[in-house]
Amino acid sequence: MNKYEQNSEVISLTQALMRCPSVTPKDAGALDLLQQCLEEIGFTCHRLTFSEEGTPDVENLYARYGTAAPNFCFAGHTDVVPAGDRDAWSVDPFDGTIKDGMIFGRGAADMKAAVASFAIAAKRVIERSDGKFDGSISLLITGDEEGPAINGTQKVLNWMQEQGEKIDHCIVGEPTNPSEMGEMVKIGRRGSFTGHLTVTGTEGHVAYPHLADNPLPHMAAMVTALDNLVFDEGTEHFQPSNLEFTTIDVGNRATNVIPKSAQATFNIRFNTHHTLDSLDRTVRNLLDSVAADRNCRYELVSQKNSSPFLTPEGHFSGLVVDAIEKRLGRKPVLSTTGGTSDARFIKDFCPVVEFGLISQTMHKIDERASVADIEALADIYSDILESYFR
Amino acid sequence: MNKYEQNSEVISLTQALMRCPSVTPKDAGALDLLQQCLEEIGFTCHRLTFSEEGTPDVENLYARYGTAAPNFCFAGHTDVVPAGDRDAWSVDPFDGTIKDGMIFGRGAADMKAAVASFAIAAKRVIERSDGKFDGSISLLITGDEEGPAINGTQKVLNWMQEQGEKIDHCIVGEPTNPSEMGEMVKIGRRGSFTGHLTVTGTEGHVAYPHLADNPLPHMAAMVTALDNLVFDEGTEHFQPSNLEFTTIDVGNRATNVIPKSAQATFNIRFNTHHTLDSLDRTVRNLLDSVAADRNCRYELVSQKNSSPFLTPEGHFSGLVVDAIEKRLGRKPVLSTTGGTSDARFIKDFCPVVEFGLISQTMHKIDERASVADIEALADIYSDILESYFR
Ligand SMILES: [Zn+2]
Ligand SMILES: [Zn+2]
Repeated sequence: MNKYEQNSEVISLTQALMRCPSVTPKDAGALDLLQQCLEEIGFTCHRLTFSEEGTPDVENLYARYGTAAPNFCFAGHTDVVPAGDRDAWSVDPFDGTIKDGMIFGRGAADMKAAVASFAIAAKRVIERSDGKFDGSISLLITGDEEGPAINGTQKVLNWMQEQGEKIDHCIVGEPTNPSEMGEMVKIGRRGSFTGHLTVTGTEGHVAYPHLADNPLPHMAAMVTALDNLVFDEGTEHFQPSNLEFTTIDVGNRATNVIPKSAQATFNIRFNTHHTLDSLDRTVRNLLDSVAADRNCRYELVSQKNSSPFLTPEGHFSGLVVDAIEKRLGRKPVLSTTGGTSDARFIKDFCPVVEFGLISQTMHKIDERASVADIEALADIYSDILESYFR
Repeated sequence: MNKYEQNSEVISLTQALMRCPSVTPKDAGALDLLQQCLEEIGFTCHRLTFSEEGTPDVENLYARYGTAAPNFCFAGHTDVVPAGDRDAWSVDPFDGTIKDGMIFGRGAADMKAAVASFAIAAKRVIERSDGKFDGSISLLITGDEEGPAINGTQKVLNWMQEQGEKIDHCIVGEPTNPSEMGEMVKIGRRGSFTGHLTVTGTEGHVAYPHLADNPLPHMAAMVTALDNLVFDEGTEHFQPSNLEFTTIDVGNRATNVIPKSAQATFNIRFNTHHTLDSLDRTVRNLLDSVAADRNCRYELVSQKNSSPFLTPEGHFSGLVVDAIEKRLGRKPVLSTTGGTSDARFIKDFCPVVEFGLISQTMHKIDERASVADIEALADIYSDILESYFR
C-alpha cells in the first residue's frame, strides 16, 4: 500500500460509473452518481442540460469545492462509445468486471476511471486539509464528448463565463499513454480542418466524350496535388501537418455515362505554423492553380473544426511531470500527437494539460484498464493537487 | 407521291406499334401486331421467349419469307426506353400523335418506324415479284435491345444457328443520322471494355496516418495514368480509342477515418487496333507499374462487352449508299462512331450495315420523326431489297 489508504474507493467508484450504460447521449445515472459522491465531499453541483435543434439534449455537470482562487479544474466525460458486438466481448461491457487485475468494460480507459480518480483525489486532498483548504477544486464533466460535442464542454464553458466562474489551470483526464502508464503527457493538440470538395464537369455518354467534360480526371489531379502538398516540416513540439483524403464519391451506376460531378472529403491535422484561415487560403490557392491548368471548376466547403494549441512547458506541466515521475519512476514525454479532445475548447480559458490511462483498448472490444494503473492515476492527481495548492 | 403508292401504310403501322407501350421488358402487344402483319404478307413467324435467372423473360420474333438463299435480314427492336416525365411531353408518348408532319412518341426514332419500314418494304417487294420471289427476306426483332440485351438478339441468333437458319446480309434499323436524313450509314462499331478497379490500403485514423495506407492517392494516380494513356491515333474508319472513368466510390462518412479501399469503374471504346484481350493486358501492365511505383495493391475485374467490327466497304455497303443517294440526293458517310447496338452480335454471322432515322430525339422527351423521313426510309429499304434480289 502507498500513503493513501482509500485506493479501493477509486476502483469502487469506477465500477459504479461503468455500470451506468451511458452511451452518448444517454446519461443512464452516471452524473447522478458522481454528483452524490461530490456533494458528500462538499462540492456545490450545477447540472446543465443543453439542447440544440438537430442534436440530442445532453446533461453535463459543473461541480466546485471552495470559492477562493485559484480554481483548479479537472475535465472529462462520463459518456462512452457504443459497446459494438456484445458477443465479441469476454465480459458484460457494462458490469465493471475485474479479472486478473484488470477492470473490463466500456469507459475503463476512456474515461470513467479518470473521472473517479478526479473525485477521489479531490476527496483526499480536501480531507487532509482539515477544513483549511485555500482555493477551489472543480470538475467539468460532460456527457457529450464522444458525440457531436455541441451540447457539452463548450456550452458549459460559456455558461461558466456568464456566471463569472473562472478556472485557472485544467487537467483533462483522457487516456494519453500509448502503451504504458506514465509514458506521455499531452501539452497541446494539432488543429483539424475538413474540406468538402466538389468538382463539376459536363455529363455525357462515354461514346461521345467530346460532348462531355469528365470531372473524374480533374478530381484525381486535385487529390494528387493536395496529397503531395508539403505544409511544413513540423515544430519543436508538433509533427508536420498532414492531409488525408477520407472519401471520393460519385454514385454513378451507369457504366456508359460520364458523370456530371464528383465529391471528395479530406481532413488536415495541422500544427501552429498554420491557422484555420491560412490553411483555407493555402488549399484554395492550390486548387485554383489545378483548376486553371485543367480549365475546370471546383467548389470547396471548409469545415474549420479546431485550431492547434500548445500549453508551453513550464511550472504547470512541470507539476504534472513531477507527480508522474514520483509515483511511477519514469519521465513522460510532452506530446501533441493524436486526435482532438475537449482540451481544444478549454485552452481558450486557461492552460490545459492532458494525462490519463493507457489508450490502447479505448473504443475497442474488451476495453480495459489495470487496477494498479487506476490507483496510480488517483495518486498522481492527488499529488498534483497537493503541489498546486502547497 | 413517289413510285410506291402505299406510303400511308408505313405511317399507320408505325402509329399502331407506337400505341403499344412496350417499355423493356414488356411487349404490350407490339410483336403480336407485327407478326399478324407479316403473316398476312406470307412470312413464317417464330415467337421466341427467352429467360435467364436474374433477368426478366423477353419475347422476340424471327420471321422469314421464302426458303431459298440468299436470306436478307432486317434486324431491330420493338422495345423502348421509359417515357420519363410525362408532364414534360407535349403529347401522350404512347399515342403516335402526328403534328406538323412529325410523329411524336416513344419509339418514333428508336425504332418502331424502322421496324414498320422493314415490313412495308418487304411487302412491296414481295407483291411486285408476283409470286416469283427468289431468295428470302427475314426480320429479327427483339424486345430486349434497350434492356440487358441478354434474352434478345444474341439468343435469337443462337437459336437460328441451331435451326440451320442462315442469314447472308443484314441491315440494322437503328437511328444512324445525327441530324439530317441520309447523313450517315454505320459500317462498324467500336468495341467496349469495362474495368472495375479496386485499390486496397490499410484503414486507420487521420491523426495516425503512419499506421494506415490511404488508398485514395493510389487511386488518383491510377485514374491519372489510365486517363493519360494514348491507345492509338485511330484508323481509316475509326476514331482513336478512348477511356473514360464513370465513377469512383468509397462511401466513407467518417471524416476522421482513412478508408480501407476505393472502387472505380472505367469504360474503353476501342477500335480494331485492339482486341478485348490485348486491352486487358495493356491496362493491367499500366496498373502494375503504378502499383509497383507506389507499393500498393489493386484488383481489376474486366467486363469484355464487345469487340470492334468493321463491315468493309464493298458491294453490300454500296447497295445501301446508292439507295440513299437515289432517294435523298445525298451521299451518306460511312461511320463507326457512337455507342454499341445489336449489330455487335449479328456481325459474327454475316456482314451488317446500319441505317435508320435521325437519332437526335431518341431516348428524350418529345421523341419524334418526320413522316417524310419515315416514308423515305421505307422507300430506301425497298430499293435495297430490289437491288439485292435483282
Ligand atoms: Zn474520451
Ligand atoms: Zn434502338
